[in-house]
Parts: sequence; structure tokens; C-alpha cells
Amino acid sequence: MGEILGNQQFFKDFNYEIIENGTITSVPGVFTSSCHCGIRKFKDDFSIIFIPGNNTCSGVFTKNKFAAAPIIVSRQQLLKNKNINAIIINSGIANACTGSEGIESAKKTITLASKYLNINQENILVSSTGRIGKKLPLDKIEKGIIYCSKNLSEYNGHRTAKAILTIDKHAKEFALKYNSNGEDVYIGGIAKGSVMIEPNMATTLAFIATNAKISVNLLDEALKESVEVTFNSISTDGCQSTNDMIIVVSNNKTNSEIKKDYDQKLNLNSGFNHFKMALFKCLEELARKVVEDAEGATKFIEIEVTGAMSFEQARKIGKKIANSILFKTAMYGEDINWGRIAAAIGSYEEDDLEVNKIDIFINDALLMKKGTSIDFDEFYVNELLKHKLIKFRVNLNIGTCWAKVLTSDISYDYIKINALYKKQK
Amino acid sequence: MGEILGNQQFFKDFNYEIIENGTITSVPGVFTSSCHCGIRKFKDDFSIIFIPGNNTCSGVFTKNKFAAAPIIVSRQQLLKNKNINAIIINSGIANACTGSEGIESAKKTITLASKYLNINQENILVSSTGRIGKKLPLDKIEKGIIYCSKNLSEYNGHRTAKAILTIDKHAKEFALKYNSNGEDVYIGGIAKGSVMIEPNMATTLAFIATNAKISVNLLDEALKESVEVTFNSISTDGCQSTNDMIIVVSNNKTNSEIKKDYDQKLNLNSGFNHFKMALFKCLEELARKVVEDAEGATKFIEIEVTGAMSFEQARKIGKKIANSILFKTAMYGEDINWGRIAAAIGSYEEDDLEVNKIDIFINDALLMKKGTSIDFDEFYVNELLKHKLIKFRVNLNIGTCWAKVLTSDISYDYIKINALYKKQK
Repeated sequence: MGEILGNQQFFKDFNYEIIENGTITSVPGVFTSSCHCGIRKFKDDFSIIFIPGNNTCSGVFTKNKFAAAPIIVSRQQLLKNKNINAIIINSGIANACTGSEGIESAKKTITLASKYLNINQENILVSSTGRIGKKLPLDKIEKGIIYCSKNLSEYNGHRTAKAILTIDKHAKEFALKYNSNGEDVYIGGIAKGSVMIEPNMATTLAFIATNAKISVNLLDEALKESVEVTFNSISTDGCQSTNDMIIVVSNNKTNSEIKKDYDQKLNLNSGFNHFKMALFKCLEELARKVVEDAEGATKFIEIEVTGAMSFEQARKIGKKIANSILFKTAMYGEDINWGRIAAAIGSYEEDDLEVNKIDIFINDALLMKKGTSIDFDEFYVNELLKHKLIKFRVNLNIGTCWAKVLTSDISYDYIKINALYKKQK
Repeated sequence: MGEILGNQQFFKDFNYEIIENGTITSVPGVFTSSCHCGIRKFKDDFSIIFIPGNNTCSGVFTKNKFAAAPIIVSRQQLLKNKNINAIIINSGIANACTGSEGIESAKKTITLASKYLNINQENILVSSTGRIGKKLPLDKIEKGIIYCSKNLSEYNGHRTAKAILTIDKHAKEFALKYNSNGEDVYIGGIAKGSVMIEPNMATTLAFIATNAKISVNLLDEALKESVEVTFNSISTDGCQSTNDMIIVVSNNKTNSEIKKDYDQKLNLNSGFNHFKMALFKCLEELARKVVEDAEGATKFIEIEVTGAMSFEQARKIGKKIANSILFKTAMYGEDINWGRIAAAIGSYEEDDLEVNKIDIFINDALLMKKGTSIDFDEFYVNELLKHKLIKFRVNLNIGTCWAKVLTSDISYDYIKINALYKKQK
């Protein structure tokens, strides 16, 4: 893990161009449409992403045991067939904890989409986000499908990026291109995710398109590795959703195929390494935008854990800190209180830590050395805490692996939005 | 686990008497003293619990990898010798992340206590609670030892229960007695614990005394089993402390020894079962008082998980719910939002759940049946949520084991106390 993505040297030598105002439809051959079908009161709540052709698709889904109906159905669809041409997305209702009726609704959505888009059912995925326990209104879904199937366009990316949001404040879009064997390879995507959904819980969705000619195996490998170091390395409130889903679809429109150079795995010219870096970049930007938009957050916090024995160990330690509510409230209060970081690290369950080797830094300032408190410049540190972006580094000093975890603070507004929507304080 | 303690039938047949205003010194032969030695500004911050005689002691300590110096030193002391006569406790400074100097300070505290109490060093434990990273002021500690060693009394229990607090609002004390072979067996204790400590983090301490004549092995067994179902089954904010410690000392003053009936493990007349139930009761009351006093909390929430395959499975599921910040904020907002409970259960990592069998209740009202949403009386449920005590029950419907987890909500005041003590908003 992180052999390529963890090596910043490679990124220095990899040239890519960020597309201004880039979105999923910045990728040639990608069409979307969005509308208000009536699940929510005013906002767009229904979308179709349509990518014609002989496609390659890879997806990762929530590990939550109460996986929602669209997760169960889309996972099954993708097991049977990797040529995905359409993704049907509704916001406002999660279609989770809805039993066999929910599964039927997800399947019926696919049947209806197949009819109006005039493609086979096996080429369609479904995705939902919103309140748990509510039933999907199929009459409204059908209206949405009828409208959107007639209004697909390669200029609708921004509208669709907004339509998949729930209470997120900002749309999350990104696209880049890079040159591969003389051809432009595009990767573009949209995402949604906030701390919760009015008045319900966090869901992270991301949909990525590319024109790279790539096999399912390589697309799977690139997605899984990229997701580990991006979306699986963020945490705003430690609450896992029932509806998380990240899908990448390639329409294979470029001529030369992305290949893996097995003999020189780390060769910079390997087309696969370049593709993986580009996909990583796209997911990293979208994941960062999700954390930046975390509801009620006033701080964006990077926690880098270095000197670890494995990526997994580094990420676990990073998440222990990111999920500590005492750490998060200290950040909101702009108080250094590094003892809360030490206590969070110490709650790590495995026996492969040596606490008397651990250093904790904020930026370049050492706060704790070899597990022991030291004197530091409190004025300088307090100034650092006033910024929106706060960077911590924990050096475990027992290995060479590292991970970066992104998180936010917990503020009054988090409580307000997640608790008091009924009390209207 | 919970073979006895999990069986409510046994408790019906077990007679004990709660001692009014009971505390640790309600147990005959237990002396304490507390004073202000100067670590904190105004409040008592130093205490000695003194129990003369040929004693039996058992202890459990935090599993945090950054275990504080008093934890490391007391654990070593207890490994070498089970006859503990004195516990030296300071509040205000945790003596955690203080390196070898911190260890020396803890050992020096024992040397000083040995001198002024005129007992051997091996008969003494130390305990600290307060800010991480600060050094213990040995001159102040010595003053405290000199004063307290001269002022030990069996009437000081209430003062000591207050002196070990940090920002807790209320002292946590409890004592009971029951009849064993014609003799009165007393168990009494004091505890501290809140969501954090001004301005630092949660520490749970509990000190229990008894006059029961009991072997170290049986005392260990009773303490470990009781702690699992009491202190290890509560969670206010999911943050593990560096200084947690629970100690039980018996002065063996009763004549007939507590014995285990190996042939009839479940025999109600077994002296050991009675002792275990009494110790459990004492720890349960103290743990409940810790949760009730959780800083900023407005709700006291009992989560009972039944129909589990093991106690551990039930408790893990219960803690997933208790530690979900979205669940806790919903409770503060008095919104039922049971989808957050389902999502928290679903984040359980093991594969031994069957989500389509799970029922969720509030009191006797069913909210989710066999993993699927159902209609319920929203008016009735909303009324239940207005009470301070809220009871949930999750039936996994796959086994016969159960666990109860106690927790609190997360409110504006939690954020205020843990974040804004510097901003003084």
C-alpha cells in the first residue's frame, strides 16, 4: 500500500493539468441530467449519469452491515457485469432499513431506467442518499427518469454535482488530464458528503469518469489503492454510513491501453502508475472537499503519521486522533492540549507501538519528544492554531511507512445542526 | 461472563442493605485524610486512604499505551505484593507523558509516604488525575503526606470523595452491607470521573474497601468480572484515559472466609457468589454516578443489547451506539432518529450479525423490526425522549446473552467546557 501513492518523489515527475471548473462531464463522452422529481421540497433530487459505449467499471461500497438497498443491488449488478452505462441517483431518501420492499424499489428503478434509456438492465447502477427508513416513492422516481433520460447533456456536470448533495454547502467537483502516449487521458468526478443529512446521517458518494482504455483488473486495483489513501483516510465524525459508494467508469475512448509494467513496477514510464497517480489526485481532491465542507467545521486538520511499520498502522493511529472528540473540541477551542493526542494514540489496541519513541509535532514545532513532555514556544503554537488549516505530525520512529488522515473540528454548529433541528434554537 | 451478574433472578434472592450516606469509610477499619497541598488553586487536591492490617488487594488499570507513571508504578507494586495498606492520591496533575522523571516522582511519593506513615514501601500504591504532561511538585506532595498522615480518620470519607474529584460536579460514594454466616460484610467505595478535567481529559478512578476475609485469587476474579459489566460498560465520550485505576482492598476483618463452591457454581448459598454480587452492586452504583455526572450531559441513556451470542458481542454493539456522536446529538435534540442507531450497529466489524433479525425498542415501543422500518406512535416516543432517563433495547435475536451499556448525550455544554475554556465564551 502506498508504494507509489506514498512516494512524493514520483508526483514531482508526473505532469498533469487541472481543468478549470472541471467536473465529471469534462471527460469526453460523459453525459448527465438532473431535475427536481419531488422527493425533497425545492432542490434538485434526481440525477442520471450516462456514459455510452463498451465501458469498464469498478466500485467500492460501504462495509456497514445495514447496507442500503441500492448498495446491495448495485454490488450485485457489478459482480455480474462490468460494462456500466448509467448510474441513477436520488437524494433525500436513503432507501436503507427498508427490507425486501426497498430491494424491490431499487430493482424497479433499474427496470424503469432501462426502459426510458433504452439500454439493458445489467448496464445500470443505482445510488441513494438521505433519511434512513423511508420508502422510495417510485412514481416520483419514474418522473425523474422520464425527464432526465430526455435531457442528457455533456454540459450538465455542475448541475448534477449540486443535485446529489443533501445539506452540503458546496458542490464537490474535480477534473484533470494528462498525456499518455500522445493522447489526452481525462479523469473527472463529483462527490457528496457532509457530517450528516437533514435531519439524518452522513453519506459519502463519489462518481468518477475517465476515457482511459483500461482493463477491469487494473481499474479495480487503481481504485482500491486510491480509495484507501483518500476517502478511507478521512473522518469527520467517525460515523459510518449505510449508503457510501464510490464508482469509477471508463468509456475506453483512448486508443492505447493502460498497461502495467510487471518487470519494473516502479518505472515512472509505466502507464499504469501514471493512471493510478491521476486517479489518486482526483479522489484526493474530492475527499479534501468533503472534509472542508464538513458541517459546522471551523478547522481543516491534516494528521500525518510517519515512521510506522505499515500504512495500516499509521492510518489507525491517525484515525484514533481524528476521531477523539476531546481532540476535536480542543481544536475548535484553539487550545494545543497535546495530551489529548497522546491519550488518543495510547488507546490504539495493538502491541506494536513503542510509546517512548513517539514524537508529536504541530507544523515544525515539537510538542512531545520520545513520549515525554518538553518545553515549547506557546506563543508560536497558539498562533498556528488560529489558522483554518492545522497540520500535525506524529513520528512513531519504528518504521518507514506513513499515512495522512484528514479531519475537522467539532463545533457548536455541529451540535446545533445534528441535535437542535427540532428544537429550532 | 455475566453468568451470575447477568442473571437478575439471583439478585432477587440476595439481600443487602444500602448504607445511608455510605462511603469508603463506612467499612470498619478504613481511614482517610485529605487536604489542599497546593497543586490546584483552592480545592483539596491530596488524599491518603489508609487500611491497616494484613490485607488483600486487587486492581485493574488503564490499557492506554501512554499509561501514566502512577499506573506503571502501582501495577509493579501490586505484582510484587498484595498486602496494600495505603493509597496516595493527588488531583490536578496526571503525571502522564513525564518520562523517567515521572516514574521517579511516583516512586519518591511512595518513599515519602512510607516514612511518614511508618509502613513499608511495598504496602503503598499511588494514583494521579489531572493535566497530562505536567511534572508532579514533590515539595507539595511531601506537605500533603505530612498533613494527611497525621490526620487519618474513619470519618473523613466524604471529604476524600470530594478531594479526588477534578471538575466533577458531584462526589461519587456508595456503601452496602450484607450478612454472611452471621457476620456483617461491608463494601464501600468512592470514585471520580467526568467527561474531561479542567482543562484536560477524562480519568476514572475508583477505590473500594471491604472487610470480607477473602483470598487474592477470589478478589481478583470478583473485581475483574464486576468491572467488565460496570466500569468497562460505560462510555461518555469514547476517550480512553492514561490514568484510569480501580483498586479494591480488603482488611479481612471478618472471621469466616469467603469461599467458592466449586461443585455447585450457581448455588445461591455460595459465599463467593454473594460477595461478587455485593461488589458488583457497589461498582454499578459508582459507575452510574460517573455517567450521571458526565459534564454537559442532559440525558442518562441505558442501552440494553439482548439476544446476543456472547456478552462481548452485546457490549461491542452497545458501545457502537453509545459512542456514535450522531446518536448522542440526536438524544440531546430529543429526536428519535433510530436510523442512526441502525447505522451504528451496522458499523460493527465482525461477521456474526444477522441484520434482518434485529429489533430496536425504546422502552416497550418497537422502532425497527427485523432490520426494517415500521410505523410507530411518534407522539408516545417523543414523550419518552423528554425524560432524563432514556432506555433503548436492541434484540439481536441470535443468542441468549446480553449486556447493558450506560452513556450520556453530547450537548452545547460539552463543547463549551472542552473547547472554549480558553475563549471564555
